[in-house]
Amino acid sequence: IIGVADKPGVAADIFEPLGKNQINVDMVIQNISPDGKTTDITFTIKRNDLDKTLKTLKSNDKISFKSLDQNDAVSKISVVGAGMVTTPGVTYKMFRALADEKINILAISTSEIKLSVIIEENNILKVSYSRQGLIELKTSPYEPSPIINSKSSLGTPISWNFLTIRYPRIEVCSDGLTIT
Amino acid sequence: IIGVADKPGVAADIFEPLGKNQINVDMVIQNISPDGKTTDITFTIKRNDLDKTLKTLKSNDKISFKSLDQNDAVSKISVVGAGMVTTPGVTYKMFRALADEKINILAISTSEIKLSVIIEENNILKVSYSRQGLIELKTSPYEPSPIINSKSSLGTPISWNFLTIRYPRIEVCSDGLTIT
Repeated sequence: IIGVADKPGVAADIFEPLGKNQINVDMVIQNISPDGKTTDITFTIKRNDLDKTLKTLKSNDKISFKSLDQNDAVSKISVVGAGMVTTPGVTYKMFRALADEKINILAISTSEIKLSVIIEENNILKVSYSRQGLIELKTSPYEPSPIINSKSSLGTPISWNFLTIRYPRIEVCSDGLTIT
Repeated sequence: IIGVADKPGVAADIFEPLGKNQINVDMVIQNISPDGKTTDITFTIKRNDLDKTLKTLKSNDKISFKSLDQNDAVSKISVVGAGMVTTPGVTYKMFRALADEKINILAISTSEIKLSVIIEENNILKVSYSRQGLIELKTSPYEPSPIINSKSSLGTPISWNFLTIRYPRIEVCSDGLTIT
């Protein structure tokens, strides 16, 4: 959602009708507004909620925005681990692994235990190659986790549990789309 | 960091020198670039890492950017709970509780188990009043948690454990600052 007002209540006015319509919003990103007047909000939903979401946003007379963008050819890659916040290197190692494969990062959202990036879905194959870079993280003092979970664009789970990496766990999710 | 190139490797080039200088980056936000050419990246660090961070960014000749903004009068409020992703209402209830107190949200970063917002630090007192709105979340099927942790701007922990809310846990952190 591009060009919404940067003022109290806007996020509530956007997401309350979505919640009430049983639309499950996964990732929400709002960056600091450079001019303090308008801002852009990006969120991800399940692909099959797209029509309902667009209808809800467009019929919502409490909010005004400049335009809506959507991208249903995206995937989310997350690195998850309980102790990440105390290990400065994890952030740049993940970004470096993607950079080494020339994968552009469309959006970033992080918390203490999880780093998620949105990338073009057609880069997912590259990610499976570049996981060597991510496996380097196994020297971190996280709990062991032999399982990487992945959902293909059709929702079929793929188990990559032949990899014996440790936390951070790597998750790949390709059944969503972004709305900006 | 305003106006960095929207291309592979930029995030790695920004965060690798920070990590190598032992600067612990907490939250990283990058929204989808409307024009696909440049984007803004916001991140939070501990306040006492500011000088080192600015020096590292400015001496980094691998990146170019339009300008740097910083704000050391911010606080982060997070709602944390393992089952949040399956409960659509949590997102808008948190945003509504802040809206009801006329608190503007500067930035949002979420994951399946945590919703974090950055607000002006001087709104923290309002948050303590508006927590009634957040307590409404106690009807969610999360584990009970009687403790709300808060750190004041001086780093002194304040225990709000007289509140008997359940998950989502509410965390308030005021010892960081944002760089955009």
